[in-house]
Parts: sequence; C-alpha cells; structure tokens
Amino acid sequence: MAKKAVSLSERELMEKGHLYYLRHLSIDNVIFGFHDNELKVLLLQWKESGRWCLPGGFILHDESVEDAAIRILQSRTGLRDIYLNQFHTFGDPQRDRGNHGIQQPKWMKTKSWFMERFITIGYWALVDFSQVVPKPDEFSSNCTWWDVEKVPELILDHNAILTRALQSLRSNLNEYPVGKDLLPQKFTMPELQRLYETILGKPLDRRNFQKKILSMDLVDRLAERKTGGAHKAPYLYRFNQRKYERAMKQGLKFGLD
Amino acid sequence: MAKKAVSLSERELMEKGHLYYLRHLSIDNVIFGFHDNELKVLLLQWKESGRWCLPGGFILHDESVEDAAIRILQSRTGLRDIYLNQFHTFGDPQRDRGNHGIQQPKWMKTKSWFMERFITIGYWALVDFSQVVPKPDEFSSNCTWWDVEKVPELILDHNAILTRALQSLRSNLNEYPVGKDLLPQKFTMPELQRLYETILGKPLDRRNFQKKILSMDLVDRLAERKTGGAHKAPYLYRFNQRKYERAMKQGLKFGLD
Repeated sequence: MAKKAVSLSERELMEKGHLYYLRHLSIDNVIFGFHDNELKVLLLQWKESGRWCLPGGFILHDESVEDAAIRILQSRTGLRDIYLNQFHTFGDPQRDRGNHGIQQPKWMKTKSWFMERFITIGYWALVDFSQVVPKPDEFSSNCTWWDVEKVPELILDHNAILTRALQSLRSNLNEYPVGKDLLPQKFTMPELQRLYETILGKPLDRRNFQKKILSMDLVDRLAERKTGGAHKAPYLYRFNQRKYERAMKQGLKFGLD
Repeated sequence: MAKKAVSLSERELMEKGHLYYLRHLSIDNVIFGFHDNELKVLLLQWKESGRWCLPGGFILHDESVEDAAIRILQSRTGLRDIYLNQFHTFGDPQRDRGNHGIQQPKWMKTKSWFMERFITIGYWALVDFSQVVPKPDEFSSNCTWWDVEKVPELILDHNAILTRALQSLRSNLNEYPVGKDLLPQKFTMPELQRLYETILGKPLDRRNFQKKILSMDLVDRLAERKTGGAHKAPYLYRFNQRKYERAMKQGLKFGLD
C-alpha cells in the first residue's frame, strides 16, 4: 500500500529530509508518451534554476521501492495509475550534486544529506500522452512533454538515464506486447507498424513486420476493412484480450519458443 | 577502478560497518554455472548458522555499484574476471534480518546498522563451472555449486532473488548471444540446442531451433562433420567472432529487426 507523502518545504528537505527518507537513495521516472506517431518524454523544470530534469524523488523509511516510484510520479507530475517498469540502478560514486554543478544554499552550515552521493533506481512507463494531464509540483515551474530527440541538457546524469530507459523500452518490444492503450481498439497493420517504428526510431520492413506480428499471435484480423483512405482499404485488426494479457505476464519469448 | 576491500571481523562489521559501507544498501550475486548440460548456482554456507545464501555484500562509500559487485564476488567466492549483469533491485520495506528470523548478537546493546532494512541490487553471471574454483571466505564454511532445481531454503529473500535472476538469464537468451565460453570451439547444432534447453529448463523443437539460430547469423557452418557418434555425423559449427561481439554490444534484436 502506498505511504502518505510527507510535505516538506525545500528548506526542511535540505535540513532534515534524511529523517523521513533513506539516505543515498533516489528514484527517477522516465515517462514516455506516444500519440499520433510521436514519442515524447515528460520533464520537469526547476523553479529556481530553470533547469530541466526527470521527475524523481526519495524513498520513505518504511516504503517499498515500487510504491515510492508511484507516489513520486503522482506527487511531482499528477500522473496516477501508471504501471512503472524498473530498468536499471545507477551507482557511480561521483553521482552527487556537487560534482554536477549544483551547490547547497549558503545558509546551510553543515553538509546536507541532499549533497551526498545518490544511487538512483530508474523506472519507465509508456502512456498515451493525449490521455493524461501533467501538473507540476510546487518545486517546478513546468511539467511538459518533450520530443525524445530534442531533450535539453538535464541535471545530474538524467540525459544518460533517459538514453538507457529508451534502450530498455526498445528491447522490451521484443519481450512484451505493446499498443493496447496507445492505438484505437481497431487498427490497421500500418498503424501498428508506425507505433513500433516511432518507438524504435527507425523504419521497418513492411513484410517482415507483418510476419513477425502475426507469429506473435496477439492480434485477430477482423472481417472489416478500414475505409476512407485513397488506397485499397486495409484490414482492421484487434488485440486478442486473453492472449495479450497472457503475454504481458509470461513475456512473448518469441525468439526461442 | 576497483577499491581495496576493507577487512572487518564479524564484530567490527556489526558495530561499525556503516562507517565504511553505504547504509541500507547491499549487492547479491547470482552465479549460474553451466557444464555438460547441467545448470547450477553458486551458494555460500554461513559458518555460524549453517544456512545457505547467495554471495552478497556491501558498497563502500566511494565505490561504484559495479565495482562493488565484482569485489564482493571475488572476496566471497574467489571468482574473478567475471562479467556481471545487473538485473533487478529489490526494495521491500520488510526486507531486514529481524523479519527473516535472524537476530543480532546478544552482546550488542544498540541496534546494528546490519539489522536495518536493506535494499539489494541483484547481478547475475553465467560461467563454465568446470573452469573456476570457488573458495569460501572466512565467514563461510562452504562455497558450492547447487543444481538450480534443488536449491535449499536460503536466508532472507534469496530464493526469490534466484528465481528472478533465472527469469532474467532466460529472457537474455532472446536479447544476447550465449555459448561462446560454455561450448567447445567447434560444436554441433544438437550441442547448442542442449545448452539452450538446459538454461530454459525445457525441450525445444529441433527444426524451429535450428531455423532461429541460423536466422541470428552468429554461427558459421564448417566443412567438417563431427565423427565418432552412432548416427549420421552432424555438421560442426563455430561462432563468428566479429558477429558475436557485435551482437554482445548491440543485442540480437532478432524479434523486430
């Protein structure tokens, strides 16, 4: 069960955050958004410095890491009910704010826990960005979708975390089905192919793609065809609910099964 | 660069380990061993309690998580030069020794950092178990290969960590090549198939397997055939060094490429 978030001012967080949160540990969420053949990532902008970052935060002393990731995402961006995939833990010993050009406020006389080394646990999710309304928290002036190819320089090693999350998202395409919440209920093979191409960031061969998708045995071809286009009307497909859910649990294993 | 291990007695570790190591954080290594169609896992037995566990340990304050995993593996089992794959970080809030039937020694008056909650970062490796000689550290009476299907009850949640590592090892078969250090330089298709079957823990269809392997484009068929068997002599294959190394870096992506 998710723990209640503690509400600390920036000053309280610096001075005594470690009384509430585990030292040396943080979570960073990489939220990818797909819609209409565009792949984006959700970023926050710090009020004070104007710099951009991934929505991250800390783990309460009695909270599971998974619950922390969900709570942090909700409290920092307003997004809720999103399934997060843990993909990597980043543990460089130089991974602290001082080494990345961030100083602690002058009024602090002793070194804040906030300035120590942090090992961060990365999570990603993929959502339909037209279906959610991000809302910045009180530390942030903006919470916005960015084109994954046009992301600005982020704080700390957040650009590297994003790159690694994108690799994980892409290799996940071979392991698990994707598309159920990102495409209309009935879709054409070219629409599904464009979803894969957008996530992979490269064109795919049409015939091979269709063969692979059909070999996964996740979509049912409907008797209907899509109408309205200039070309020959393409068939419509629909995910098979039962098979999709099973593959989400067991994986596609479609390499060697 | 790997940091020098600190050498603490059990008493020193309990009393002041947190001066050297990051609190709340540990590493557990799941070392799988393959040889002659057997899959095993390397376990340590505690001298004191006689209970079995994965070879784990802690992260020095100024050490990278990867370096810590390598140092811990070497200091606890004697195994060196082994490539470790990070697969998951385990963060249940009940994950502490007290909740798993382990008490701190009576002579300690205050609660040891050792008894606090630990978030553990899991790594796995796959080695040829006939090529390495495990050696228990001073805390352990044994360091032994166990059949993965016959592992005893381990301390803490180590059985669950092992299960998850096995899942990761198996899904890795779809992403990266395997076999280069586990098979003789020249091998037959049935030998390669048995390697995959042993890791996956189930039989595979011979024709499908051959088709998939050849579609990965990693092995070259040699002009020679294996001799000495009762049946028709099978062809010998060899991994293509260049293609194997490229696939180790880029992944096979053999689902959707």
